[in-house]
Amino acid sequence: MKKRNAFYAQSGGVTAVINASAAGVIETARKHQDKIGKVIAGRNGIIGALTEDLIDTGRDSATAIAALKHTPSGAFGSCRYKLKGLAESRAQYERLIDVFRAHDIGYFFYNGGNDSADTCLKVSQIADRLNYPLQAIHIPKTVDNDLVLTDNCPGFGSVAKYVATSMREAAFDVASMAKTSTKIFVMEVMGRHAGWITAAVGLAEDKKTPIPLLLLFPEVVFDEAKFLRAVREKTERFGYCCIGVSEGLRDASGKLMAETGTRDAFGHAQLGGIGPQIAQLIREKLNYKYHWAVADYLQRAARHIASKTDLEQSYAVGKAAVQFALGGHNAIMPAIIRTSDVPYRWKIKAAPLAKIANHEKMLPKTYITRDGFGITDKARAYLTPLIRGETPPPFKNGVPQYVRLKNIPLPKKLDMDFAI
Amino acid sequence: MKKRNAFYAQSGGVTAVINASAAGVIETARKHQDKIGKVIAGRNGIIGALTEDLIDTGRDSATAIAALKHTPSGAFGSCRYKLKGLAESRAQYERLIDVFRAHDIGYFFYNGGNDSADTCLKVSQIADRLNYPLQAIHIPKTVDNDLVLTDNCPGFGSVAKYVATSMREAAFDVASMAKTSTKIFVMEVMGRHAGWITAAVGLAEDKKTPIPLLLLFPEVVFDEAKFLRAVREKTERFGYCCIGVSEGLRDASGKLMAETGTRDAFGHAQLGGIGPQIAQLIREKLNYKYHWAVADYLQRAARHIASKTDLEQSYAVGKAAVQFALGGHNAIMPAIIRTSDVPYRWKIKAAPLAKIANHEKMLPKTYITRDGFGITDKARAYLTPLIRGETPPPFKNGVPQYVRLKNIPLPKKLDMDFAI
Repeated sequence: MKKRNAFYAQSGGVTAVINASAAGVIETARKHQDKIGKVIAGRNGIIGALTEDLIDTGRDSATAIAALKHTPSGAFGSCRYKLKGLAESRAQYERLIDVFRAHDIGYFFYNGGNDSADTCLKVSQIADRLNYPLQAIHIPKTVDNDLVLTDNCPGFGSVAKYVATSMREAAFDVASMAKTSTKIFVMEVMGRHAGWITAAVGLAEDKKTPIPLLLLFPEVVFDEAKFLRAVREKTERFGYCCIGVSEGLRDASGKLMAETGTRDAFGHAQLGGIGPQIAQLIREKLNYKYHWAVADYLQRAARHIASKTDLEQSYAVGKAAVQFALGGHNAIMPAIIRTSDVPYRWKIKAAPLAKIANHEKMLPKTYITRDGFGITDKARAYLTPLIRGETPPPFKNGVPQYVRLKNIPLPKKLDMDFAI
Repeated sequence: MKKRNAFYAQSGGVTAVINASAAGVIETARKHQDKIGKVIAGRNGIIGALTEDLIDTGRDSATAIAALKHTPSGAFGSCRYKLKGLAESRAQYERLIDVFRAHDIGYFFYNGGNDSADTCLKVSQIADRLNYPLQAIHIPKTVDNDLVLTDNCPGFGSVAKYVATSMREAAFDVASMAKTSTKIFVMEVMGRHAGWITAAVGLAEDKKTPIPLLLLFPEVVFDEAKFLRAVREKTERFGYCCIGVSEGLRDASGKLMAETGTRDAFGHAQLGGIGPQIAQLIREKLNYKYHWAVADYLQRAARHIASKTDLEQSYAVGKAAVQFALGGHNAIMPAIIRTSDVPYRWKIKAAPLAKIANHEKMLPKTYITRDGFGITDKARAYLTPLIRGETPPPFKNGVPQYVRLKNIPLPKKLDMDFAI
């Protein structure tokens, strides 16, 4: 087996643990220096490959690479840049192969969600057509948890732990204040298409710690009258009510509720998202005092409260990607296979990209309670193991210590610039 | 010394660590059962005393009381209910003494901020006038950090740690995305009058981890043109820019910026706070893509990332309150006195309530950099020790385990109901 270089890039929205996958790739590759030469990273994702803006990860120490395991964000930069079909984006795909050829890249590791799974598959196809020997492996990452064939997606478990913890803490706060002040707390969470993160808010409560909690899923059409009845019922019975709402909540016409808001004098859509909208609605119709929170990036960047399960799996898929590559695999993704709920057990298996790209795993209907506002025991059995375990980063002077790599550029080999 | 009962109540907005002060009071009182009988808590703060809705804390085990140290929120309920002057609110003050007399309460421990310091002082005065023997001790608590005579206020350090950590994490996230996506991240923080929490956002960055960060303090009049220049400069130089903005940001006329927003078709003030407003302004004027977060209650309820220093001090002021009471003190507050910055050292001293009530400690001008957008080294020296140390709660199934006390009511002794 001829020794060749590897390329690694991060794609789309970053997470609290995507860098653990990078560490898995780099540390595993370093253990196989007879077969893998450099691990070259794309600066700002695939754009780095297209523009030959490459990083020599070999210039960073073992200590720095190990520190990626406790550092959120994308250490090499990520991007939102979608390659289209092979015909439509042919120039880009061919350019990728040119760059790979110039740097003798035999392994393409692409760390992202649905779009990047599709890109990874197409890169493997174009390499094949151009007779360029390349093994393309997709490494799963998405807080949206919507990739198929894998039981769950690295990045999701940590967001899930963050939103469950945050809602539990806020619920305790509101319960203290409800007698004379705030009775309603609304937290908006990510997940525009699928309600996985919304479902995870449901883990804020359990049998030992019940909380009057209503969830608004993107999968359940918003029924204002029914929702307000539920809010009033909870508030009258328990004194307060907490609401977790997906940014992707839709009305009966299928329109995003966040986009149906009023506009200001300049015609700009109002600034608040769906969280403040729901809070305001409750105030207008039920006259309860409210507070609302929109955690936004805080939820996906919160390495300080990352899930240990999530961290381990993120590292494992990076490590497995290299092992699968060395085993001759191509156009696959290391998928997480759950073999047992209690005790939770999982393993990694290669799943074909052709069956992953362009599919979306939605929250099963059986995970949502009949009234549409809660999660079932089945959902709990699925979700709970994913948020289990704590793995705090090192702290100094009260704040987490995250690494910034040197990200030293690799000298360019191609003459031509490439406009993106 | 005749054995008498103690009364404890929580007042105003709760924090991640106010229950540690409750634990300090109860555990210390339990060690002096020769002098202190029951510790009676007011359900929902002072309202519990006025309505004789009292809790027998003796019905909760030592384990449950110890668990208060890792439980955010107000375990007995808090309230927003301000007693006015002795003349104006005479009926309330006399009622308090009636209830105290009925339950043989000789110690009044009131755990709160500025308003409750004032109430505590007045309770001590009315007891004196009515010849009712009572020692009134105020226990400091406020995330706003604005009590005088104490170096800092329990509750603040944990919020400070939360906002510094959150901004650091979000900044890493944005830095990854800035090439093709989000370049601006705005986080709104609490602190309507004083910029202590805004200043703490500045701890997100330090010499080892610089971040292009701008702070908008309530103490600094908002200058739109100057601010936008600073945002553009940071973004052009570093590729992205993070902004921490106080909910109390004011314009040149002294008006709260959050209240100057546009109104919707129904005349309602727009939903978003100042965070989304600032983000939208940057979008309109500089055309950068933005994200914004409003953590709201999450920041003050976040026991999972509480400061160890804060936790220790919260417990210490509760413990000292009981010790001062047993030592014969009245109308005082255990204040935190800093004796050294490096290494950080502090002690507790009794401070007279007469010099605390109705004063507000503002952020010193020397803590804000000359350009108005950052914190000075002096501010860092003050703030850093307050967020130092981690003290995570126990977790089970991925979420923190917080205690809910039994809160068993004490039988009423008075015939008369009291309307509040």
